[in-house]
Amino acid sequence: MMWKEKKYKKIKKEIDNKILSITQNKNSLIQDSIDDLVKSGGKRLRPLLVLLASEFGDIEKDKIYKIAAGIEIFHMSTLVHDDIIDDASIRRGSETVQKKHGNKMAVFLGDYLLSKSLEIFEENLSSISKKKLSKMVRLICEGEITQHTNKFNYDLTIVDYLKRIRKKTALLFSYSMYLGAYESNVRGKDLYHLYKFGLEMGMAFQIEDDLLDYNGKKDIAGKKTNQDLKNGIYTLPVLLLLEDENERLKTINFLKENKNSEVLKLVHKKNKIKESRKLVKRFIFRARKQLNQLPANRAKKELSKIIDDQLKRNY
Amino acid sequence: MMWKEKKYKKIKKEIDNKILSITQNKNSLIQDSIDDLVKSGGKRLRPLLVLLASEFGDIEKDKIYKIAAGIEIFHMSTLVHDDIIDDASIRRGSETVQKKHGNKMAVFLGDYLLSKSLEIFEENLSSISKKKLSKMVRLICEGEITQHTNKFNYDLTIVDYLKRIRKKTALLFSYSMYLGAYESNVRGKDLYHLYKFGLEMGMAFQIEDDLLDYNGKKDIAGKKTNQDLKNGIYTLPVLLLLEDENERLKTINFLKENKNSEVLKLVHKKNKIKESRKLVKRFIFRARKQLNQLPANRAKKELSKIIDDQLKRNY
Repeated sequence: MMWKEKKYKKIKKEIDNKILSITQNKNSLIQDSIDDLVKSGGKRLRPLLVLLASEFGDIEKDKIYKIAAGIEIFHMSTLVHDDIIDDASIRRGSETVQKKHGNKMAVFLGDYLLSKSLEIFEENLSSISKKKLSKMVRLICEGEITQHTNKFNYDLTIVDYLKRIRKKTALLFSYSMYLGAYESNVRGKDLYHLYKFGLEMGMAFQIEDDLLDYNGKKDIAGKKTNQDLKNGIYTLPVLLLLEDENERLKTINFLKENKNSEVLKLVHKKNKIKESRKLVKRFIFRARKQLNQLPANRAKKELSKIIDDQLKRNY
Repeated sequence: MMWKEKKYKKIKKEIDNKILSITQNKNSLIQDSIDDLVKSGGKRLRPLLVLLASEFGDIEKDKIYKIAAGIEIFHMSTLVHDDIIDDASIRRGSETVQKKHGNKMAVFLGDYLLSKSLEIFEENLSSISKKKLSKMVRLICEGEITQHTNKFNYDLTIVDYLKRIRKKTALLFSYSMYLGAYESNVRGKDLYHLYKFGLEMGMAFQIEDDLLDYNGKKDIAGKKTNQDLKNGIYTLPVLLLLEDENERLKTINFLKENKNSEVLKLVHKKNKIKESRKLVKRFIFRARKQLNQLPANRAKKELSKIIDDQLKRNY
């Protein structure tokens, strides 16, 4: 992963410092929880996208770092609320807020982080970006609810899945690119391609992220594996089984009888991980197509490396 | 309560219709939950404050109803998240979302309502109001966290309590007044007095609201009583005992030993409800002082009735 390189460690450090300075609070429980969240890792991929997209235009350094930090704080708020949802005790390799201080605190801490990010955006964004933001926040919430209401739903289709991960993940990637670019006065085709790049890349990222759950190795994913099936969340490999007419009935029966290990065996036997990765590659191809239309610069090279990394993430 | 009058029933109906039209959603779980929330009652006090404050200036009817509905939707989002916190199964006399669909759904539904209100505000508010809003949302979250971290804290003071209810409740009242007025082009002293009226009235409202928990009658409060002590939330009567040097040690011992009924007996024996209501009256007096500085009109009369009602609410 590119963050290993010295330069990116430095950028990550700067983003983290900005997050900490923005979120500092007299209440020690708030402060400690946020310190924990920042320390517990994460690649800061979304703020990096903000910064890289901004290099296609021009903006004051302090301002773009504030915006980049705001995006990560917003993302953290969704992680904290997500952890309540799935009763997940491990996220990014550490204990979650929810596990440490209970659901109650996690709800409020998530709300606090969300409100803090909105305050940053309110102060630093143009009016058009703010309108887009409020719509995106609402769509992300809708995506979460849809995922929740579709639990244990055998009739979920791959199209439903793609719509869901678009809302759940890809929108924030594309919005990160958009923000970085738009606030740096990038307009027209460049803005469009940067935005679309984020969307395609976000789709690839989330499918891969879902595949980590099938991988079985906690240390790579930084969280427990084999959780999605248990929680009734059907991701691409299972949906490929369900849409495979030879496997559909068998799969439904395994799911109904809670035989998750049988479903997992079938996923691997029928090469559904490989098939899923084909779709990842297609999204990466589409992201690259967007990238190719952009003017050559340092940021373009970095974005190209980031999409290469999507394929090297796991296996 | 004034809502019983025909005119206010009509206004409440209009606000509810606006809320329902704003929040309508294809996802039936979202739709049903919001229908439940709207149907389960509530006085729509905050939107009413928006509407009344707007009468000191001038604004298009549709726009002010949108803003008023936005305030109630925001308020609903905090209620939904509050219910996760206290594991409250009854709110406004009905089953809560949390009880019906679990914590997970309640977190996301609260997030959805918050995002929806932000979208309304983004589209309808001036830039200054939006800046105030984002700060207020953050302060409300801080208030909730402070309440949570101060649970079972015998050293909490009345000053801490007043700070907490200011953030938790009074700010939203004063912001409702501010919004209604500012967006209707009220400026200067009138704006100030309307804003301050909301703040003082909100303080009176929350102290009274906390007193409902001591009342013992579920049907008045529309929610279970005697819950605060059980949850370690010390409101004014208990804090008056704790700051009464003759009662402090005894009270702490009762609290430590979880003898809540003894604490309640002491509250009544030492007239701490009456003493609390003196403070309510002081805030009402202060609210009335603000009101007196405002030009005479229909809205002023209604605001005056609303503060009278604060004293008739419960006992």
